[in-house]
Amino acid sequence: MIKNEVKAWILSIGNEILIGRITNTNATWLSKRLTFLGVKVTRIITVPDEIDDIIEELRRGLNNADLIITTGGLGPTYDDKTIDAVAKAVNKKLVLNPIAYNMIKAKFEKSNLPMTKEREKMAYLPEGGIPLNNSAGTAPGLFLEINNKIVISLPGVPKEMEAIFEEEVINKINKILPPISVIECGFKLEGVPESSIAPILEQVDKKFSNLYIKSHPKGIEVSKPILEIKVLVSDKNKEEARKKAEGALQIVKEEAKKLNGKISEEYC
Amino acid sequence: MIKNEVKAWILSIGNEILIGRITNTNATWLSKRLTFLGVKVTRIITVPDEIDDIIEELRRGLNNADLIITTGGLGPTYDDKTIDAVAKAVNKKLVLNPIAYNMIKAKFEKSNLPMTKEREKMAYLPEGGIPLNNSAGTAPGLFLEINNKIVISLPGVPKEMEAIFEEEVINKINKILPPISVIECGFKLEGVPESSIAPILEQVDKKFSNLYIKSHPKGIEVSKPILEIKVLVSDKNKEEARKKAEGALQIVKEEAKKLNGKISEEYC
Repeated sequence: MIKNEVKAWILSIGNEILIGRITNTNATWLSKRLTFLGVKVTRIITVPDEIDDIIEELRRGLNNADLIITTGGLGPTYDDKTIDAVAKAVNKKLVLNPIAYNMIKAKFEKSNLPMTKEREKMAYLPEGGIPLNNSAGTAPGLFLEINNKIVISLPGVPKEMEAIFEEEVINKINKILPPISVIECGFKLEGVPESSIAPILEQVDKKFSNLYIKSHPKGIEVSKPILEIKVLVSDKNKEEARKKAEGALQIVKEEAKKLNGKISEEYC
Repeated sequence: MIKNEVKAWILSIGNEILIGRITNTNATWLSKRLTFLGVKVTRIITVPDEIDDIIEELRRGLNNADLIITTGGLGPTYDDKTIDAVAKAVNKKLVLNPIAYNMIKAKFEKSNLPMTKEREKMAYLPEGGIPLNNSAGTAPGLFLEINNKIVISLPGVPKEMEAIFEEEVINKINKILPPISVIECGFKLEGVPESSIAPILEQVDKKFSNLYIKSHPKGIEVSKPILEIKVLVSDKNKEEARKKAEGALQIVKEEAKKLNGKISEEYC
């Protein structure tokens, strides 16, 4: 089942993001990782630790994306509600998963800690769910296929989320990844205001398919403009992608030179 | 019109977040700022630079929150579509705002740069919209009241977003802010696994109203647990809020001591 366009939603669960206590770097990491796997992330949504809010956004995700990745809310505390919400969102019962149970028990046993209600809670998964081993922590992740869609739940602790993604998730989503290469190229442009280079970026965007070009203002628009021009390109292989990226940037560079812009820090 | 609970949605607009090129630090900054103003942020949503996606989430925001703050998509480039989307979401025409026009013209005139189509674009606002002066850049922000709701659009460049918020937004939303004080207190706890302290946090959460308590695991759950215990409290004044926060943390500290936990780095 390889699709030409695979859409993903990232659902970040946690009040700590909504009160500004932590920055959602998990979403950045996942979006970058997914983008370079050829997946198009179309929403990143942070919801409170409230079961109804999580269910609402999970269901919207299931209607609008092929892949939904949640982060956070997998731990042992009373406000970790993600798995319960996933089960309810897909109308599945929550059942004690023996593989997950043993994963958790083994980790605590090593330190002579007993299983408790809170620890056992982490072993409950929706029926049909597969536990994902957490090599960097205790709460297993969840992999669930339902109606041709995939729901993956990962912990909120970044090193645990990243470990499970690399060690467990990649293999399991490989079958739906599109057979394409993605590349990013760019350069720094000094002396040209963003509003002066805007028309040529629009032309380039229209000229090429599967290309995303953007100027990022870093200086002061009028008196001391500095822009980062970046292009993200996907194509059937790395070589084609690079060729397209360089072609697009060449057009911008020619225009920038006409406007007396200084080009530096080129990369591809 | 002072409400007891003011809900806000943050809408972050930009493909650059969805491809993981930049981290959404604007959302962190805004949520923290809003939280300590007594506003409850209930969603942070990142959408692509696509007009239909922006409209969809704006309309959901208008149905679910009192205040919607958007960041990004205000600039001069073809993919800056926020203002157009706001106008469509609230069924207002986009009109050239003379105050916004003069703000922009004055900035470019200083450097002997003429008005162009791209620069003029930044002067269009939905009918009834008020431009917000951007002391750190060129694109004005937008303030719009509609059916007892407020929509505010700010640029994506952090220093511009922050400047407009502090200089222009605070005064304008003051009238809807609840008359409360918010305080955060906490401590570091070593030697107690998160799953062991979880039951007492749940008790504390149930015991107090307008209190949010959370453990943040920083070490290794089983072999070397380190937790940050943080409590966020709101009350009618700072003194009451602090009293409640300290009362809540005292209960956790007593339990932590029974579990041979080491407490340090207390703050309030």
